Amino acid sequence: MTSESQPRIGIIGGGQLAKMLFQSARTLGFTTVLLDKEPHGPAAGLVDEILTGDWNETEALAPMAGKVDVVTLENEFVPADTLAHLESLGVPVYPGSKTIRIVQDKLLQKQTLRNAGAPTPEFEDTPTLEAAKSFGDRVGWPFVLKKRRNGYDGKGNATVDGPDQLPAAWAALEGDQNELYGEAFFSYTQELAVIITRSINGAEAVYPLTHAIQKNHICHVTESPAPVPDHVAEAALDLARQAVEAVEGVGSFGVEMFLDRQGRLAVNELAPRVHNTGHYTIEGCYCSQFENHLRAILGWPLGQTAMRTPTAVMVNLLGAGDGSGEPVGIQSAIEIPGVSVHVYGKTESRKGRKMGHVTALGASLQETRMRAERAAEQIRFGIKQTA
Amino acid sequence: MTSESQPRIGIIGGGQLAKMLFQSARTLGFTTVLLDKEPHGPAAGLVDEILTGDWNETEALAPMAGKVDVVTLENEFVPADTLAHLESLGVPVYPGSKTIRIVQDKLLQKQTLRNAGAPTPEFEDTPTLEAAKSFGDRVGWPFVLKKRRNGYDGKGNATVDGPDQLPAAWAALEGDQNELYGEAFFSYTQELAVIITRSINGAEAVYPLTHAIQKNHICHVTESPAPVPDHVAEAALDLARQAVEAVEGVGSFGVEMFLDRQGRLAVNELAPRVHNTGHYTIEGCYCSQFENHLRAILGWPLGQTAMRTPTAVMVNLLGAGDGSGEPVGIQSAIEIPGVSVHVYGKTESRKGRKMGHVTALGASLQETRMRAERAAEQIRFGIKQTA
Repeated sequence: MTSESQPRIGIIGGGQLAKMLFQSARTLGFTTVLLDKEPHGPAAGLVDEILTGDWNETEALAPMAGKVDVVTLENEFVPADTLAHLESLGVPVYPGSKTIRIVQDKLLQKQTLRNAGAPTPEFEDTPTLEAAKSFGDRVGWPFVLKKRRNGYDGKGNATVDGPDQLPAAWAALEGDQNELYGEAFFSYTQELAVIITRSINGAEAVYPLTHAIQKNHICHVTESPAPVPDHVAEAALDLARQAVEAVEGVGSFGVEMFLDRQGRLAVNELAPRVHNTGHYTIEGCYCSQFENHLRAILGWPLGQTAMRTPTAVMVNLLGAGDGSGEPVGIQSAIEIPGVSVHVYGKTESRKGRKMGHVTALGASLQETRMRAERAAEQIRFGIKQTA
Repeated sequence: MTSESQPRIGIIGGGQLAKMLFQSARTLGFTTVLLDKEPHGPAAGLVDEILTGDWNETEALAPMAGKVDVVTLENEFVPADTLAHLESLGVPVYPGSKTIRIVQDKLLQKQTLRNAGAPTPEFEDTPTLEAAKSFGDRVGWPFVLKKRRNGYDGKGNATVDGPDQLPAAWAALEGDQNELYGEAFFSYTQELAVIITRSINGAEAVYPLTHAIQKNHICHVTESPAPVPDHVAEAALDLARQAVEAVEGVGSFGVEMFLDRQGRLAVNELAPRVHNTGHYTIEGCYCSQFENHLRAILGWPLGQTAMRTPTAVMVNLLGAGDGSGEPVGIQSAIEIPGVSVHVYGKTESRKGRKMGHVTALGASLQETRMRAERAAEQIRFGIKQTA
């Protein structure tokens, strides 16, 4: 593209993250192309062109070439080889195949972080049941056995309480088919997350530290800025920079961390994409993680990450059951002042599926969180039958 | 619709106002249908279904029935009879045909406002050249001769300096084909505007008073909140309420006013739709004029109109010439902190056409305006040739 043409953005994957990226792209007047397995996801109604195809297959991505100036991802599961093939066709892909190859293998990701000097929980490759047992004996039980690939939201992990439980955990994770590694139990008091946007020219924009509160291994609430001492926040933002640079990341990344009682930080994992813990940036910050992601992958100047209001609290809206993707209770939720409701537009709800979120803005975390939770409680997905 | 179904919203007209309405509708997960003369306008990429048709023709609107729960407008030029026909098919239309019938005839609009006790500049029906001359003799020269219908952004108005100029003005406005009326020159020091959202159940949400600075009869800059004494702001918000109630308006309305040296207010005109002077509410307020419009026409609770930051300044981006709708200079503009850029996505630029806008947020109007103007100066439309 010439430096003065309006960009054409291609995204692989059409869920809520792609939807919010496309919303930013639309505001800026960009052309948008989506590649997805099925053409009716949340992002489908916001694009100029939909390419239907399975992004596991190299050939499915080829039609993107020529149609867009840059390709980006809404998830880290697109095979790195597929992305490398697209790059070989001359299409810029950000984050690139090199970054994705590291990040999508959690063992390699952790090794890369450790080599860069970033603190992580202790971990070790455990290619066999015996290796896993000696890891447990060394770091102590319980420890966490994890799939190297394709895990998310706690799926692909198993806590192993002692040697007796190991064979069952191994079997549950299908250790004979999946590569597994062991991670020491890190006794944390808080989970923190940083959204950081890194441009193709190396510029970085770091968002305020966020406190992530999980429920059943899924992000439930985020509080921004995280209620921690300044020196902890500063260390966390530095760690996020270190982590993203270690994998040569480009775009908005979510860096999840643990904080223990002694104030020590450890990187839990990197998400090479816009991240659930950064949804608050849409209403809460001058420039959202979504717009900054687009700016970063184009090499455009990055936007201001400062908050527009003192605090922002996000609450995820998960499917209460299997059924229609239509929510009930939106009207009661929006009655609460200072609350923005996002409904992703998924056709089907499944129990625990991310169906939307609410963000509340306000002066104090405590009061803002009360409003956010109260709004979220009004809304239910999946309690109606599918039409 | 049942009270718990996700709403289906139909909009007549597919320009930038429809685009921003649809963006809000998408965030809330609503289904969207557009009726427009041509299917490639700014709103086209954000809808579930496009109906192509001329909204001057009654039959063109009929396909909306059954597809949507409520129909709304992005301009006041859709004939009231056409809307009345749609209403007769059982489709709720807001604002309704009764309101549009009043507002689209500027003489009837002013009469309605005056009858409700709202101050306006002096005016009179001038069906003939002779009537116009006696109006001028009575209120003094210069006065403004105006078309009763289809005027906007200063088009359809002529300032008449004296009796000698009257025939030329009459001819320029084609007074023999168009109904004209006379309006006394109101010597104002500031133009002010209020966005007010009124629900089908009568609830009202009033946004902060905005100072509108025109250039060549087109809104150039808005400053919010307007730098006027509190008692003026309070009187202006009250006047906006009075005006919208006088026409039984439903939805977000822009109420344009004059303020004179003595601190007197007069309503200039009503826009029965989301309004250019309310674009700052997207980034600047807890709930934008666009989301509140949707809430209002659905009878949902209205959102908070308070500002998230102390001040917001918007600058319109007008076509610098005829040519491609692609902007140049966006990258330089977004380098300025705290600035959001909106590119409407019109294919063609024409000199003076509204192609986008920028909004800056900040602590003081003066400093915020400097950033907004600086950003706007970077961006040019219509200097490239059409591809």
